[in-house]
Parts: sequence; structure tokens; C-alpha cells
Amino acid sequence: MRTVIIGSGSWGTALGQVLADNQQDVIVYGRNQAEVSDINENHHNTKYFKETELNPLLTATQDLSVVEGADFVLLAVPTIAIEDMCKKIDGYLKPNTIVINVSKGFHPETNERMSDVIRRSISSNKLSSVVSLIGPSHAEEVVIRQLTTIDAISLKMEDAKQVQMLFSNRYFRIYTGSDEIGSELGAALKNVMAIASGILSGLGYQDNTRAALITRGLQEMVRYGTFFGGQERTFMGLTGIGDLIVTCTSKHSRNFECGYQIGQENTVDNFWANNTKTVEGVRTAKIVHRVAEKNHISMPICEEVYQILYNHKKPDTCADSLMLRDLKEEFR
Amino acid sequence: MRTVIIGSGSWGTALGQVLADNQQDVIVYGRNQAEVSDINENHHNTKYFKETELNPLLTATQDLSVVEGADFVLLAVPTIAIEDMCKKIDGYLKPNTIVINVSKGFHPETNERMSDVIRRSISSNKLSSVVSLIGPSHAEEVVIRQLTTIDAISLKMEDAKQVQMLFSNRYFRIYTGSDEIGSELGAALKNVMAIASGILSGLGYQDNTRAALITRGLQEMVRYGTFFGGQERTFMGLTGIGDLIVTCTSKHSRNFECGYQIGQENTVDNFWANNTKTVEGVRTAKIVHRVAEKNHISMPICEEVYQILYNHKKPDTCADSLMLRDLKEEFR
Repeated sequence: MRTVIIGSGSWGTALGQVLADNQQDVIVYGRNQAEVSDINENHHNTKYFKETELNPLLTATQDLSVVEGADFVLLAVPTIAIEDMCKKIDGYLKPNTIVINVSKGFHPETNERMSDVIRRSISSNKLSSVVSLIGPSHAEEVVIRQLTTIDAISLKMEDAKQVQMLFSNRYFRIYTGSDEIGSELGAALKNVMAIASGILSGLGYQDNTRAALITRGLQEMVRYGTFFGGQERTFMGLTGIGDLIVTCTSKHSRNFECGYQIGQENTVDNFWANNTKTVEGVRTAKIVHRVAEKNHISMPICEEVYQILYNHKKPDTCADSLMLRDLKEEFR
Repeated sequence: MRTVIIGSGSWGTALGQVLADNQQDVIVYGRNQAEVSDINENHHNTKYFKETELNPLLTATQDLSVVEGADFVLLAVPTIAIEDMCKKIDGYLKPNTIVINVSKGFHPETNERMSDVIRRSISSNKLSSVVSLIGPSHAEEVVIRQLTTIDAISLKMEDAKQVQMLFSNRYFRIYTGSDEIGSELGAALKNVMAIASGILSGLGYQDNTRAALITRGLQEMVRYGTFFGGQERTFMGLTGIGDLIVTCTSKHSRNFECGYQIGQENTVDNFWANNTKTVEGVRTAKIVHRVAEKNHISMPICEEVYQILYNHKKPDTCADSLMLRDLKEEFR
């Protein structure tokens, strides 16, 4: 069985190494010459992992035709690139390919979840199913083989189990699940909460405040997720609270870091002027604002993040709203 | 309205200062001469808060008769001292006193929750109701006036609302709730999870692993709590996941610290030889082991913590069990 990973960023590289460690036939496709050479020649991906030595069995290529005939294709590209990439690889795919999704967010125009984008963009006879890998899993820890647990979610359980077998090893544990809606919405929304958590930390708030924010954030995620058909208990699991905690509390989270800078500077201006990395939560905040407004779903934390990011609202004036000052009973 | 706080430890002092900040009539009772003098003369509680200056309006006394005629009595003593203290103060209480409970754990012999112990130990005509203050709230942050949210839980909503009014201010926000069982069981069990989280960190595991542990831990807490009549949604709130996160991730948690040391040394021996502080989770682990066994409730994380603490099992042999290696589907 052969796996091609599309994307030589941190998550694509880390997941590629898991398969290399499992002695699977795997190759990483990357657009960037320097990253591809770094993997092939130095067994490093210095841009993301500094001095960490990669498994020398992991190789990379700039030739997209490598996708031809692969059994598994794993898409590790930003959400905005998913649709184009699916269309680019469609011609190479053989029938019944399992496509693995690890992107967390929504289509920038249609607001679709990633699994829906993939199903729409790949010829149906070529796709067995989409399997999403979601859970508390910083690439920076997976690449140094820290014990990590993650869910393989699919509407087709036998495909989820195949992905489970492909990736499982002593440090990387895969559980299966089938609530695609709840898992993908949780994974997307948690990035907005991580920005909020970063903003509060940047403003100087500490652990008590952050725990309150995460608790409130989870309730918002449940409200949004169940509105669209996700199961509430999914938000109690690895793709919900698990992923939320790791993203809201860890120095490795790009979304948290983005919020932290905005909080410290008490303005979003420098972020828009200087940021070059993909920060999915920034895009997600815009979609959630749009969708929540249309469907009358109350999302106070996401809304404040949206106002800070897109309407240049001062972060220090939002802390109260983030903490829902007006609430009196915890559950109403 | 007059409030007496029983206990001059970290939480009693921090909550006393909240009331002093609110210009309430409040006094702290402490057994320890040094702590009482430190509060009265230096406006410090150096043992717990080092150089932090306390509100000079906060005073303390070694005379328990100060309880006489108080409207609110707040018990901030270890769980093992609650029953005795209730019996000691009963003679001083006036009818319809509101007793505020902030202890988290169980009676060491009867396994009762703290509210049950208090109701049993105070004459019924003297007690209006027990109100438990529970939520993500390290005393070390409350004492420096960090924004904190917490639940006031009572079977008598008007008493919960009185406590809410008493404590609420710009940095300390109280929500009301009525699920005493779910809130108290969550608050007690989270201390055991914090020991487990500390053990994993001490063994060298990082953020991905900790997030998985917290996720699994929450599911154990729900299982135990709902078995005894708690509501599942309570565990999604401040007294559940909120308190769990702050205790499992913060340097201020005594339970986390205890576990961390045990993990680093890969043995419990030094803990038993040298510990002098109250670590409620250590006591709670014993009760939960006993009660879960009797009632056939599956509590794998609590059980491993129990085995490490009381049967000297080596922590590094437990990491797998803590992470539930055998599980395949996330929800079964």
C-alpha cells in the first residue's frame, strides 16, 4: 500500500515520518524546492522543526504525478488550497482511493467543511471516502515521537479502520469515529478559541481566566456544532475538548501565538502588516461570523475575535465580552 | 451582614480578601498564631503568597467564638477537618446561617460529599443551606485580583444568589447553579486527574499526551458523576472541565505538583516520607477506588493513580494504562 502526502509543512512532514517509522511506502509532495531538498538531503525540515533529525526513510518530491496510483492520499495543505489541489490530483487518482484530510477550517467562499469540499472536487468513482485525522496533536511533538492520540473519522468505518492500521504505532494511537460534522466543526472552531485564548494571555490574564474562556468556548462550539447536526458527545472527546485544550494552552499553536501578539500589542495592525504564515483561525473567524449571523446562532467569543481581527476593535475592550460579564446562571 | 472564614490557608485568605475588597464585614479564623499575626500585622500571608500585600481591611483571629451570630460561615479547611469543625462551631451559630463550602473531596470514613457532611454535622435549625463555591480558581491568582469565574452551587437558589452578591466584583464573577452532586463530584475527582497529569509530565510527556489524558479524565468524571445522580452537562461547565483544565495544567496546583514529583522520581516513596501539605487528590484517590470497586464503575485513570500512590506501582509502567492503550473506537 502506497501513501502520498500532499504538503511539506509541519503536519505533512510529521505524519510522513509516522508512516516512515511504520516502514510504510510513503512520499511527501512539496512545492517548495528548499523544503523538499532539506528532507531528501539533510533529513531535516528546518523551517518547522529546526535541528530535529527526521527518519532518513522519509523522502519528498516536487513532482505531483507521484500521486498516480496511490492507495492513500493525505492532504496537508491550507484550507484555501484544498479545492484546487483536489482538482489537480484528480486525473492521477485510481478508483477507490482513500483521501485523508487533516485541514481544519472552511472553504473561503462556500463555507463548506473540508470533507464536503473534497467530495465535491474529486470524481466520485475515484474516491472511496474521506477520512479526517483530528485530535490533540502538535506536529512539533509528533515529530519527536511524543505519545499522541487522534481520531480517524469517516462516514465509511472500514476506511477509518484502514487509516487506523496505517498510522498506529507505539507513540501514535488512532481511535475511530463517524461523527464527521461534529469532529470537523470542533476542529475548525477551536482555532478561533485559541486566538481568543492567546489574546487574553497577551493582555496579561492568567490560568483562571483561560480556563473560564475554554469552558465558555466549548459551549459555543457545542451550540454551533449541534445546530448543523454534530453530536454533543463528540465535543467531549479528542476532536472537541482534547483538541481545544492543546490549542488554547500550548506554545506550539500558531493560532494561540497570533492571538498572543495581538493581545500584547492591543491591536491587530501588526498582524495584518507582517504575518506570512497560515493562521486558519483567522479565516475561520470570518466564516463563523457570516454563518452564525445568517442562522442566528449566538457565538459571543467568536464574534469578539472577528471584531478584533476585521474591524480593528481594541482587544482590551473585549475582555469583558469574552468572559460574558452579563451571565448570571451558568446554564440557561 | 457578617462573614466568618474558617481557615487561614491560601483559599481562606484569598476569599477573605475578595470580601475585604467588597468592603464587607469579614474576619478570618486561623489556628496558627504566625499566620494570624502575619495577616493582622504585616498584611501578608507569607507562607502561601510570599510578598503579595493583602488588603489591610482583612483581619484574622485565633478566637473561634467570632463565629457567633455570623450570617455567612465559610469553611476553608481540609476535608478531613470539616466534620469536627462543624461540630465545634455549631453552638455559636444563629438560626438560618448560610454555610459556604470550598473543600473538595470526601469524608475519609463515610465517603460522603462535603455538603452532606456539613448538613449532618450542623443542627438543622441553624442551617439555611450549604452553598459550594467551585470553579477554576487558583488562590494565587485570586489574591492578585486576576479575573476569575466560579459557581455558587446550592439546593436553595436564593442562598446561592446571596453568596453571588456577597462575592461578585470586577475581578471575581459568580454564576449560580443547583447541581450539587455533579459539581462536588467533579471538583473532587479532578484532583485525582491532576495527580495523573502531573505524573505524566514528570515522566516527560508533553502537551499532546496531557490533552488526551484530560479528555479521558473528563469521561471518567462524567461516568462517576452521573452514576450518583449528577447531570452530564455540569461536567461541561466551570465546575467540570473548567476546574479540571486549570488543575491539570497549572503550576499553582498542589495536586499537579505532587504528581509531577512522583513522575520525575518514578516512585511515590519520597512523597510519603516528606510531604506535609494537604493534597486532597491523594485522599480522594483512595475513596474513589473504594467506591468505584463497590459499585462496579470503570475508573481506569483513578485506579492507576491509586495503585501508584498506595501500592507503590512504578509510574512508568502505568503510562499505557493511563492512556487506555486497548481502546479502538473513541466512544463505545
